[in-house]
This record gives sequence, structure tokens and C-alpha cells, in this order.
Amino acid sequence: MVRLTLPEPKLFRTGIEAVSKLITDTQFIISPEEGLKMIAMDPSNIAMVIWKLLPSAFSEFDVPEEKKIGLNMSQITPIVKRIKARDVVSFELDEENNLLKIIITGAFKRTFTIPLLELGEREYPEPELEFKVKAEIDADVIAETVKDAKIIADALKITAENDKLTMLAEGELSKAIIELTRESPALVSLEIQEPSKASYSIDYLEKIVKASSVSDILTLQFATDYPARFDFKALERMELTFILAPRLE
Amino acid sequence: MVRLTLPEPKLFRTGIEAVSKLITDTQFIISPEEGLKMIAMDPSNIAMVIWKLLPSAFSEFDVPEEKKIGLNMSQITPIVKRIKARDVVSFELDEENNLLKIIITGAFKRTFTIPLLELGEREYPEPELEFKVKAEIDADVIAETVKDAKIIADALKITAENDKLTMLAEGELSKAIIELTRESPALVSLEIQEPSKASYSIDYLEKIVKASSVSDILTLQFATDYPARFDFKALERMELTFILAPRLE
Amino acid sequence: MVRLTLPEPKLFRTGIEAVSKLITDTQFIISPEEGLKMIAMDPSNIAMVIWKLLPSAFSEFDVPEEKKIGLNMSQITPIVKRIKARDVVSFELDEENNLLKIIITGAFKRTFTIPLLELGEREYPEPELEFKVKAEIDADVIAETVKDAKIIADALKITAENDKLTMLAEGELSKAIIELTRESPALVSLEIQEPSKASYSIDYLEKIVKASSVSDILTLQFATDYPARFDFKALERMELTFILAPRLE
Repeated sequence: MVRLTLPEPKLFRTGIEAVSKLITDTQFIISPEEGLKMIAMDPSNIAMVIWKLLPSAFSEFDVPEEKKIGLNMSQITPIVKRIKARDVVSFELDEENNLLKIIITGAFKRTFTIPLLELGEREYPEPELEFKVKAEIDADVIAETVKDAKIIADALKITAENDKLTMLAEGELSKAIIELTRESPALVSLEIQEPSKASYSIDYLEKIVKASSVSDILTLQFATDYPARFDFKALERMELTFILAPRLE
Repeated sequence: MVRLTLPEPKLFRTGIEAVSKLITDTQFIISPEEGLKMIAMDPSNIAMVIWKLLPSAFSEFDVPEEKKIGLNMSQITPIVKRIKARDVVSFELDEENNLLKIIITGAFKRTFTIPLLELGEREYPEPELEFKVKAEIDADVIAETVKDAKIIADALKITAENDKLTMLAEGELSKAIIELTRESPALVSLEIQEPSKASYSIDYLEKIVKASSVSDILTLQFATDYPARFDFKALERMELTFILAPRLE
Repeated sequence: MVRLTLPEPKLFRTGIEAVSKLITDTQFIISPEEGLKMIAMDPSNIAMVIWKLLPSAFSEFDVPEEKKIGLNMSQITPIVKRIKARDVVSFELDEENNLLKIIITGAFKRTFTIPLLELGEREYPEPELEFKVKAEIDADVIAETVKDAKIIADALKITAENDKLTMLAEGELSKAIIELTRESPALVSLEIQEPSKASYSIDYLEKIVKASSVSDILTLQFATDYPARFDFKALERMELTFILAPRLE
């Protein structure tokens, strides 16, 4: 029987909450090598989410062979929101009855059972992208930046040149410019292979930066008029990646 | 003149807030022996509330003879919500003008005056019920359980057998099972005279568990397809009881 | 170039937030002698706001001559809400392009640019009023009083006589009386030249007391059926004054 136990369910909760902003139903792959993995597109094909909970994140990881399970995010999300920081969470696959059991153990034992979905062969390969800019940024700062930009516009133009990362939100009359230089404590590193410039939807950015509680640092990669990649990593346990299509003017 | 003073108004506030979820207007009985007492039915006749503030809860209790006063919960509730933890609250009955004065003394003095209602002879006797199960449960845990169950269904089936209390919420596809065994720190005691099973409305349970701030422990009593009784007690000062009709399938 | 820097932006933020409840667009006057000043009427001509940020509130105050700038409160308010307590805020006037730059420096640098409005000659002189009562009151207490009164009525009648300040909210059936005597710790001082009585709109009072975070003490002045004046002062840095027309029955 497939059975997994998570001693630190906060990571799982944060992941599910972030993913549920973009995805309605999705296929998880559980495998002995990779742990729990999910690659999904949002319904508008603008953002892809790649979420990996590594085998080392689990205290019990009883997965004899690879399994694919389809889940409806609107069924699992309210259950996951009920998980408290000190709970221990186990997952059991009941393949005969096509069910997933989520067992939450704290001051008392709660078992939630939800149906598995038949999602058919819906697999997305992890895209191979070549970026020209790579920046490590304080994850909270990027969340604040998106809030700043949202006041003014619905797109954020990111420019990397001259050792500086600039984010510009431009409305009809007002604008906001956020600058991250090597002097900003919020910018941990910045590699520019080629000066680059691209615009992204602030609505989507807002959903992506909800994941900033996963890790202190966000790795941002992009190139001119090209997708951007956002990586949040909790070392040895979880990787949460978003790939966001650019807005072309 | 009838005059009562409460040095610890938090209890009164919690009581009014819990009762106001179920009752629109009601009759309070003030008597030298019993203090302040209220027995009321919700408009759908599904839940009964019995609320007693004992004479020992008051620092001043000047009640020469029994009085019955009718109050509209929507008039008194917003006033009671204005009481702060450190305020002292006095009640004065102005029978001549058919008014209740609520005097709140803190950093300054505030006097609210509200009209008494003529409710006629509307007295409910406290029902005599014979339960087969009695459990003392951590009051917060029961509040959490109701939140868990609400995700899945609109009724909660409670089963007591084999030294275990089980709560089941069953939706069309999903379900939640909450188990309280003798090992659960949340279950203080459990007496089962006869294995029992009954369902109750989660909407009503949600309103009832709002009272969980009154006391750390909730006493739950029920029997098969029979009403349940929920007792919250603040020792020597207040008793708040809800009797809830079962849902029969 | 006109440039001002505020090391303590919380005052500015509180001022803008309070003013924005009453005013939609307004003219600020920046002058070497007076600092930043704004006198505006709410659209219904019921309340006037006088707001002064004194030159001593600024760490940099580069204002060669008086300037008048028109601003839309709905453009500046969301930007100002993004200021954190530890940020340093600078303002730069770009007269050529008719723009105001708001530069917020914290963990990183953010520059917001908003257009200046042409408001024409819209100047209000500070009215000369003769009050008969002057009271200094704990600013939080007046905010609480307004919340108490709002439960009952939409007007608050303030009476000063016999060394006492009384506030009365009277509904059809209920009423609330708040009394501040010399014994109330909440009443710092009370000067009554002439017994006075006047009513004011609770909706407007609610908006005015939002400024209570500016200072611990509110100075209230009024007279019979006459405007009331509310002064919130942060010593040597900011003065925020509201003048509110009475409600005449």
C-alpha cells in the first residue's frame, strides 16, 4: 500500500495554497525516486507550476512503484487549510476504491477521504528554457513590489541592465519604479548575460508571490520578451517553480 | 429597585454573543435564588438555550423578588459587544418606564437604555431527558471538529461505542472521520451506558460551539436518534446549555 | 528644485488616511515658513480639514518659494498606504512635467510618480470661530464614544455644563449617555465659558476620530448650535484640525 507521512506539513499546506490559486484539478505523480511531483498549467495556459516534495521531506515514504493520482484542488484545499503547524499528516492511497485518505494526527485523529479523478494522459514535460538573467531576491521584497505595482497598472516590466534590476508599472498618468541594485540588501545576487526586458501580468505575479512563505529567497530568471521562471526552494524538502509567459505589447 | 453588578463582564458578553446566534428576542428571569436565567427556543424549534448567571457571579445583586423582562437580542447584542474586559457592568430595571439601563464603567461612564418587551407568558420548562452517553471534551477541539466537518457535509453523525467517540461527516464523494479515544488528550472522560448514534445539523453545531470560550471543557450528552445536550460551565458563576434536536434520516 | 524628506512617515500616512475619508481632491501649499499645508472642504460642505506638516517635521526641506500643488486623494492614498514605519520618504516636484515624485527608501528604492491637478484658485481661509467650551480628551476615548453612539443613532448631542461633558445618542427607543466628569481619567481639562449644547453627525465624527492615532489627546471646542473644532497635534511636527458644522433640529 502506498503511504506517505509528512512531519512538517506547513510546507505541504503552503504549496497547496499557492498552487490552488492557479490550478483547478491536477495530476500528482508519486515515485520512489522523485517523491511527490506535480506539473500543471493554469486554465489560460499563461502559467505553469512545477511542485516537488522530495522523498527526504517525508518521515515515512512507502511507495513501491510510480503512481499517478488526479485530484480536484477545490476538494483538497479546504482540508489542507485545516492542518495545524504541529500536526503530523499521512497520505494513504486506496486504489481499489479510488480514494485518497488524508490522516491528520494532533490532539486527536482526523481522517479525510476524497475521490481520485480520472484525468487521462495529461502530462506536461518540464520545459527547457534559456534565460539571460538570473537574480536571487528576498522573497518578501518581491511580494511587496507586486503590491506596489498593482496600485498603478496590470503589467510589470522587468529590466536587467547595468548591474541593476528595475521593475516598472506604468498607468495612464501614474507610474511606479522599483530599483534593486547591488547595494540593496534585498538583492542577494544578479547575473546578467545579456541586457533583458520583459513584461508580466501582475494578476499572475500576485498569485505566484503567495509562495514566498516557502523560502526566504526567490530565484528569478528571465530574458527579453521571454517566459520568467520563479523558484522557491526549501532545502532538501520542497521545490516550487512557476513559469510565467510574458506579455507582449 | 432591581440592580445587579457584574465585575467580570466577559462571561456575560460571551453568553449574549452565543445566545444571539440562535435567539431573536427572549425573556430573562431575575430571581433572588437563581440569579439571571433564560430559557429560549430558536425560531425553528431545533435548539433550546438555557443560560444561567448565578447570584455568585454578581458583586451586587439587589433583587427583592422575581422579575421577568423581555429583551430584543438585536438591541442588546451590539451594546454588549462594546463592553471591554476591564469594564464593570451594572444593570438597573426602570419598571415605571419599562426600561433596562446598562451602565458600563471604565475610563468613563456610559449608560445605555433599552426598552423592555412585552413577551406574554412564554415560558419553557427545562426538558427532562435521558441520555445514554456522557463525554467531557476539550471545548476547542469540538469547535475544530465542527470546522472540519463543515468542509464535507451539513450533518455530523456522532457515534459512541467501544470506548470511542467518532464523528462522521459524509458528503457525496468525500468524508471526514474524527476519532476521540481514551488516548486522545482531548477526551477528558467518556461514559457509554449503551452504544449510541445520532446526527445533528452542522449549522447549529457551529453556533453552539461559539460558546467554547466560556469554559475549557464541554460536556456532551446524547443517545440514539435523540437530542444532544451541550454544557459549558464557568464554575460558580455561569452555566450555558444547548439542547439540539437530532436529524432523522 | 523643490524637495522634501520625511524621516517619520507614519505621521504623513495617518494624515493622508484621515483626510482621504473626507476629501476627494485638494490643493496643498508648500511654503518655506509653514511647511506643507492643506485646507479643504468635504464635498457636502459639512466638514473642513486643516492639515499642517511643519518645516521641523522634515529632515530635508528645500522649498525656495511657495508652491501650490493639486492632488487627487484616490491617487496618492494607495501609494501612501504602502509606506512602512521604517521607510524614509522624499517628495520631489517636477514642475516642467507637472508631476510629483514620491520616493520611498527602505530595503530597496521605490519611486512613484503621480500627475499634479489644475485645481484653479480654490483657497479657503481658516475660519475665525468663537467657542464657549474647550475640552482636552483622551483621543481613544472619543473614538470609543463615537462607536458607542453609532449603535443607537446618527447624531451625537454634546452638552457642557456643571463641570461635565455629556454625549447623548438618542434613537427611537434606545439611548446612550456618555459622561466625562473631572473624575474621569479620560478628561484632561474642561473650560466652560458658557453652558453649551450642540448636535453633530456621527458619520462625520467617525471619519474625524480616525485621526486619533496622530496624538494621545484631542482638543474639542464648540458652542451652542455652532461648529465644533477637533485638534490633533503631534508636537512641533503636525497639526490636524477638523471643523464640523452642527446639526440643527
